[in-house]
Amino acid sequence: MSPYSSPSLQMVVDDHIKRALAEDMNSGDLSTDAVMPKPRKGHVYLICKQDGVIAGLWVFARTFELMDPNTKIEFDVEDGDRVKAGQHLATIYGDVRVLLSGERTALNYLQRMSGIATYTRRIADMLEGTGTTLVDTRKTTPTFRIFEKEAVRIGGGTNHRFNLSDAVMLKDNHIAAAGGITNAVAAARKRAPFVCKIEVETETLDQVREAVEAGADVIMLDNMAHDQMAEALQIIDGKAQTECSGNIDAESIGKIAGLGVDFVSSGALTHSAGILDLSLKNLVVDK
Amino acid sequence: MSPYSSPSLQMVVDDHIKRALAEDMNSGDLSTDAVMPKPRKGHVYLICKQDGVIAGLWVFARTFELMDPNTKIEFDVEDGDRVKAGQHLATIYGDVRVLLSGERTALNYLQRMSGIATYTRRIADMLEGTGTTLVDTRKTTPTFRIFEKEAVRIGGGTNHRFNLSDAVMLKDNHIAAAGGITNAVAAARKRAPFVCKIEVETETLDQVREAVEAGADVIMLDNMAHDQMAEALQIIDGKAQTECSGNIDAESIGKIAGLGVDFVSSGALTHSAGILDLSLKNLVVDK
Amino acid sequence: MSPYSSPSLQMVVDDHIKRALAEDMNSGDLSTDAVMPKPRKGHVYLICKQDGVIAGLWVFARTFELMDPNTKIEFDVEDGDRVKAGQHLATIYGDVRVLLSGERTALNYLQRMSGIATYTRRIADMLEGTGTTLVDTRKTTPTFRIFEKEAVRIGGGTNHRFNLSDAVMLKDNHIAAAGGITNAVAAARKRAPFVCKIEVETETLDQVREAVEAGADVIMLDNMAHDQMAEALQIIDGKAQTECSGNIDAESIGKIAGLGVDFVSSGALTHSAGILDLSLKNLVVDK
Amino acid sequence: MSPYSSPSLQMVVDDHIKRALAEDMNSGDLSTDAVMPKPRKGHVYLICKQDGVIAGLWVFARTFELMDPNTKIEFDVEDGDRVKAGQHLATIYGDVRVLLSGERTALNYLQRMSGIATYTRRIADMLEGTGTTLVDTRKTTPTFRIFEKEAVRIGGGTNHRFNLSDAVMLKDNHIAAAGGITNAVAAARKRAPFVCKIEVETETLDQVREAVEAGADVIMLDNMAHDQMAEALQIIDGKAQTECSGNIDAESIGKIAGLGVDFVSSGALTHSAGILDLSLKNLVVDK
Amino acid sequence: MSPYSSPSLQMVVDDHIKRALAEDMNSGDLSTDAVMPKPRKGHVYLICKQDGVIAGLWVFARTFELMDPNTKIEFDVEDGDRVKAGQHLATIYGDVRVLLSGERTALNYLQRMSGIATYTRRIADMLEGTGTTLVDTRKTTPTFRIFEKEAVRIGGGTNHRFNLSDAVMLKDNHIAAAGGITNAVAAARKRAPFVCKIEVETETLDQVREAVEAGADVIMLDNMAHDQMAEALQIIDGKAQTECSGNIDAESIGKIAGLGVDFVSSGALTHSAGILDLSLKNLVVDK
Amino acid sequence: MSPYSSPSLQMVVDDHIKRALAEDMNSGDLSTDAVMPKPRKGHVYLICKQDGVIAGLWVFARTFELMDPNTKIEFDVEDGDRVKAGQHLATIYGDVRVLLSGERTALNYLQRMSGIATYTRRIADMLEGTGTTLVDTRKTTPTFRIFEKEAVRIGGGTNHRFNLSDAVMLKDNHIAAAGGITNAVAAARKRAPFVCKIEVETETLDQVREAVEAGADVIMLDNMAHDQMAEALQIIDGKAQTECSGNIDAESIGKIAGLGVDFVSSGALTHSAGILDLSLKNLVVDK
Repeated sequence: MSPYSSPSLQMVVDDHIKRALAEDMNSGDLSTDAVMPKPRKGHVYLICKQDGVIAGLWVFARTFELMDPNTKIEFDVEDGDRVKAGQHLATIYGDVRVLLSGERTALNYLQRMSGIATYTRRIADMLEGTGTTLVDTRKTTPTFRIFEKEAVRIGGGTNHRFNLSDAVMLKDNHIAAAGGITNAVAAARKRAPFVCKIEVETETLDQVREAVEAGADVIMLDNMAHDQMAEALQIIDGKAQTECSGNIDAESIGKIAGLGVDFVSSGALTHSAGILDLSLKNLVVDK
Repeated sequence: MSPYSSPSLQMVVDDHIKRALAEDMNSGDLSTDAVMPKPRKGHVYLICKQDGVIAGLWVFARTFELMDPNTKIEFDVEDGDRVKAGQHLATIYGDVRVLLSGERTALNYLQRMSGIATYTRRIADMLEGTGTTLVDTRKTTPTFRIFEKEAVRIGGGTNHRFNLSDAVMLKDNHIAAAGGITNAVAAARKRAPFVCKIEVETETLDQVREAVEAGADVIMLDNMAHDQMAEALQIIDGKAQTECSGNIDAESIGKIAGLGVDFVSSGALTHSAGILDLSLKNLVVDK
Repeated sequence: MSPYSSPSLQMVVDDHIKRALAEDMNSGDLSTDAVMPKPRKGHVYLICKQDGVIAGLWVFARTFELMDPNTKIEFDVEDGDRVKAGQHLATIYGDVRVLLSGERTALNYLQRMSGIATYTRRIADMLEGTGTTLVDTRKTTPTFRIFEKEAVRIGGGTNHRFNLSDAVMLKDNHIAAAGGITNAVAAARKRAPFVCKIEVETETLDQVREAVEAGADVIMLDNMAHDQMAEALQIIDGKAQTECSGNIDAESIGKIAGLGVDFVSSGALTHSAGILDLSLKNLVVDK
Repeated sequence: MSPYSSPSLQMVVDDHIKRALAEDMNSGDLSTDAVMPKPRKGHVYLICKQDGVIAGLWVFARTFELMDPNTKIEFDVEDGDRVKAGQHLATIYGDVRVLLSGERTALNYLQRMSGIATYTRRIADMLEGTGTTLVDTRKTTPTFRIFEKEAVRIGGGTNHRFNLSDAVMLKDNHIAAAGGITNAVAAARKRAPFVCKIEVETETLDQVREAVEAGADVIMLDNMAHDQMAEALQIIDGKAQTECSGNIDAESIGKIAGLGVDFVSSGALTHSAGILDLSLKNLVVDK
Repeated sequence: MSPYSSPSLQMVVDDHIKRALAEDMNSGDLSTDAVMPKPRKGHVYLICKQDGVIAGLWVFARTFELMDPNTKIEFDVEDGDRVKAGQHLATIYGDVRVLLSGERTALNYLQRMSGIATYTRRIADMLEGTGTTLVDTRKTTPTFRIFEKEAVRIGGGTNHRFNLSDAVMLKDNHIAAAGGITNAVAAARKRAPFVCKIEVETETLDQVREAVEAGADVIMLDNMAHDQMAEALQIIDGKAQTECSGNIDAESIGKIAGLGVDFVSSGALTHSAGILDLSLKNLVVDK
Repeated sequence: MSPYSSPSLQMVVDDHIKRALAEDMNSGDLSTDAVMPKPRKGHVYLICKQDGVIAGLWVFARTFELMDPNTKIEFDVEDGDRVKAGQHLATIYGDVRVLLSGERTALNYLQRMSGIATYTRRIADMLEGTGTTLVDTRKTTPTFRIFEKEAVRIGGGTNHRFNLSDAVMLKDNHIAAAGGITNAVAAARKRAPFVCKIEVETETLDQVREAVEAGADVIMLDNMAHDQMAEALQIIDGKAQTECSGNIDAESIGKIAGLGVDFVSSGALTHSAGILDLSLKNLVVDK
């Protein structure tokens, strides 16, 4: 495995990659099998075709390694590096059949993760020095969340909860079901592991006040107007962490940061970033 | 299951949804479990927040059904319909805990599929009446291809091969390995099921000529200039189907269609479409 | 499904039960298949053979339902109820072959979960009214944690983190690797979702002071003597939540609670509770 | 793999360990990933904290090897050895991140298996020299049976059937369904592989007589009084193997053995043994 | 489920069928999806095209039920019945798309199982009244054993062990490794569940004598000549069960039975039976 | 892995082999574990017992490698070679426990694949020089298709479609549902990837004419009489590829080839070939 992978992610990552390879080769690679029935050594280059931030190199490497543990990759960059169109990023050495058959799957991981890191980096840079931190959401591609959340971190963002099991977020419907914020927070304290923070979503200043009194660890200000948000922050006054969400753009994000909110969350990081264009080029087949 | 699903996709789809639900709830939904330890009946509305094309309704429905087969959904639209911001699309009836816990996963499928259908529809409309057909690629999210390719079809595009197992595409590296297009096509004929067409990727007019003579079923013109493409089409002259690929935009696509190419493929359909914004609103918990 | 199950746990639970059934019947139930080759309706009673707390009724029910959705169960008790030796707990109606073949697997879940709930209830009762809360650990049976942690909750305990992914616990080795508590807490803040609390394990009063200053959310006092623990709590003085762990017995637990520590954790809840003896009795085969 | 593993158990064991690791790290190890983003070599010691019998060393080893095949373990003991509190059992060398992230899962296997081996050893020793053999039951933790049954063997017990598929045990309900012991045995002979023995559970001396005449291979004396058991054994008189079950304690087991019964089975071996306390200590991170 | 299925086989069977359906429809049924995008009710007939013995009806039924639980099947025969070319065996009612897409997979199960049952029936009939029983082997199609062994039973054969885990068969290599039959049997007694019989494979009369003395439960006479087999049976003289194996044909099987051997095993039952030709005919699509 | 495997098939193959090994060893190999509790090096020979064509050598090798990557195999033949009874085919070196426990599973793959290759070779030889190509069908063993189709290729046949997802075959029922061949072909063109050929099954000359006009890529002549087939081929006259199916025997196949049909398909290749008899012999255990 390449040096910067995470062993604790590997069981989940390997399982996903195996499914992805099976998705692309349910009964073999007809083209490669036809022209190369026997193994031949060679190498190919990973080239960047767009400026951005690279993310997912070990997933890319792992894809080839799972097909053939003898594949070797020399990387010229590491995750989080800014890369330029035309830049050479890595050389992959191995059985040419593996290089050809694994190419698309490996790139599909790398392109998506790099696209997210690139977009996240751009937004995170806008928040540089403001004290406000950029976080992601659960608006991710089904079964692909672990890759998308890692890409956010590589791009300079921070993760919100991974899933419904590892933190509490009490929304309007939960609050209604519990009979108010106070009850909802109390019920959550009883059910959830005590190491999970409890976050309450609020839409009015009265809700903000009730959340503070109920002892919420985090208060989310959902789609509030700028002035309302300012007032909410005064009410909270450090008694809870604060998060704001809603449609964020380049202009609004500066203003929000100016208010001193702790976290600003953006679904677009994972659902609308697009990819970073990359390709494998100049395959050399050894004699 | 909702009426327009495909039974032949269901094994694969169900398996994927189960993984997605487990991804989001590896040890339960702390928030919902806390405030609603017991079942309560209710319903909630699926609302559109952006203009677009809806796609993935049966996957959305299946997500709730897999959590609880007693969930019932009334749809006001069907896959492929154009929808408007603010439009009411469906009502979901069932155990409120299921509605809350399944919401994000169900929406994550539907938003992505609808985003792809919306984008595809826009490009496909540009090709309306030209005789040129829009097709997708294998540049999809790992393990999520089946949903992305269905969304392309719903949006008015046509699918290229699903994976490496069901068609032959001979690229430069395959051709080099085989010692030329003629050999590569012959090797592919021998290995591949005879019901698969054989496509050859070409970059020069000499390659186009060799591909025609080798009996390629489809010839791809890769990143050719406009005039070169025109000449290639004259050489081919109906002896093979033709596909062009490369970075397509609103302007170029019209010109390409004007040349009479059979297929134009676009990776962006599946890798850069973004989502269609949708949400579940106005939960009603029965007394 | 029985009424008090949790839909958000079901994907994981169902998958586990299916594996358990396959473990016990990899090539069929030779005894039942031999004497009952065809379906026959009947019912059987779930009887308690020991005093305790019942836990896992819906897992028990789900085991039979997964074998045959037509199985029906009438429960006379619900999870968390104290039960007595000789008490009748439920009647299970269905295909007798299902009742016989599923019996052992269903009981194996129920007996273990009830054993844990029984033991937890006993310890939790000792802490009744003290302000100190009993929590579990990750010392669970591999792949069986979700059942063991649910049993702890049913028995009156509270869960600590579910796994390595949903909270931060910085132990001596983490601290050494980071170069001190301050660095370790800072690194964890950066990596972990902000909704996760950060807990630091301490063995000395100096470490306690450093943890407070570093802004730890929870400070664990590991195997400290009684007086040292008292002093640690004075140092912390409400600036973090406090947990103590170590070998807890009936005598020591009262003293610890007297100190005002927030949480006391016990691995024995899940690793040494033993089972609650239960059985299926008096099968009636319908004519 | 460590030298004393069983290749024929490995597919099942590996699959279980992978699930266990994924259970504990569904989205990474937040603590370790935070303080050690890059690999560092080191080693740590496996220490015993209680007297007992060690069991499961290769499962322990395999847990680390599945996370990283470069992990190396030097064992000072082998399965079945009696170990003492404070004893050093092994040294584990590898990537420190792997040692930290895999620690709990590896110990959870080893502690449970050793707890069972320790308890089994104690009971088996009581039967030493009596001619009566100690056997286990199917009262195991769902999906964990293979580990629990191996621990019984390592502790000096013998296994009863692994599951419903590999031997026949005709209980009261089977007998009732078949219309008597004679019919039940005949039906089982027809259905079951002829290499499976057929065991009949009896509660009365009449049943014992019928079982002998029916040609049962094994006759279980279920919860019989001492004198009744003695009489049953006289009736059987070597024409079948004999097993007795029921609540066994230190006193009763001696008497039972004195009667000359072939096998005595105990569910407690696997359902109530508790763990053997072990830990990883003194991690050394290489410079 | 159809009435004569086995609930204890169902987890394994369902899992296998789901894989088989996914094998045949990894990305949908292009033909059926094209011409029938929406559900339509209809029915189709299962017709026999060859004389034989039918086996696997509930697996056939389960295939359609797993695609759509609303599929209903009326069977005119049951497993084990002798069927004739041209005979109508069942009517399947449901969504026509399900009938079309599931047809091949359902038939592939039924044809193979019926082929084995037909062949087994033919051989078993030759042994009718001889006291010698026909048994199968482990020479089965990988992962398909459960279906092949059920077909053998339906055809009138009896199963030998299911796999390496549920009985002991000591062959020449095991014996060599243990240092002789006596040692090998003793080692097996210690390791294997006591409910498993121990079978020893012998090739010489000396081995037969040693096996008898070692207390083998079953002695296999491997490829012995007729006279040698007779002598072996005299030596054994009822002290163990006897099995003979080797290439059996219509002539030799009578002679073997005449010797009074208990079991004759034949790999051909499962590896060379061929299929029974069946088809779905005369689809009616409801108006 | 052995040199001539296909990396693109490996994910699917490995997954299948792991299931097969677990099928045969769900709780260990009792016999081998008993006599060889510790590893011992040795080797064993793969011997052919029947004349035929060998196929599946890398699957055979992979079975042992998945049990233990240190197993080494020296092959004296390669896939597709004609082999003779008594011929030595390979030597397998490794842990004797692996050789013994993996033997049956590895042989079960190799025997079936070789049986199919042998039978296919015989039929393909009859077509040598005729211009007609032998193809297989989907009448395969559920979940085992990938092995059976590879064996057909190795034996000199060509594959028809792998499954319902990778080509279109419009049968009578599809045609009826679509309202005629013309509509059916048009619907298929719209739904299916354009790289899939569209095949139409015909039973009459009118259907043949309609299929030609509808632009079918392949026309299947289903169970037509010889003269009718000749006339059909004249009608088609090169405008589509042609396939004939039905019960083929040595006599009829020559006549069919004489007509100039492109492909003749035979289900018997995969459903009735029987096995090629092979065995592992002469195990040597190193001192």
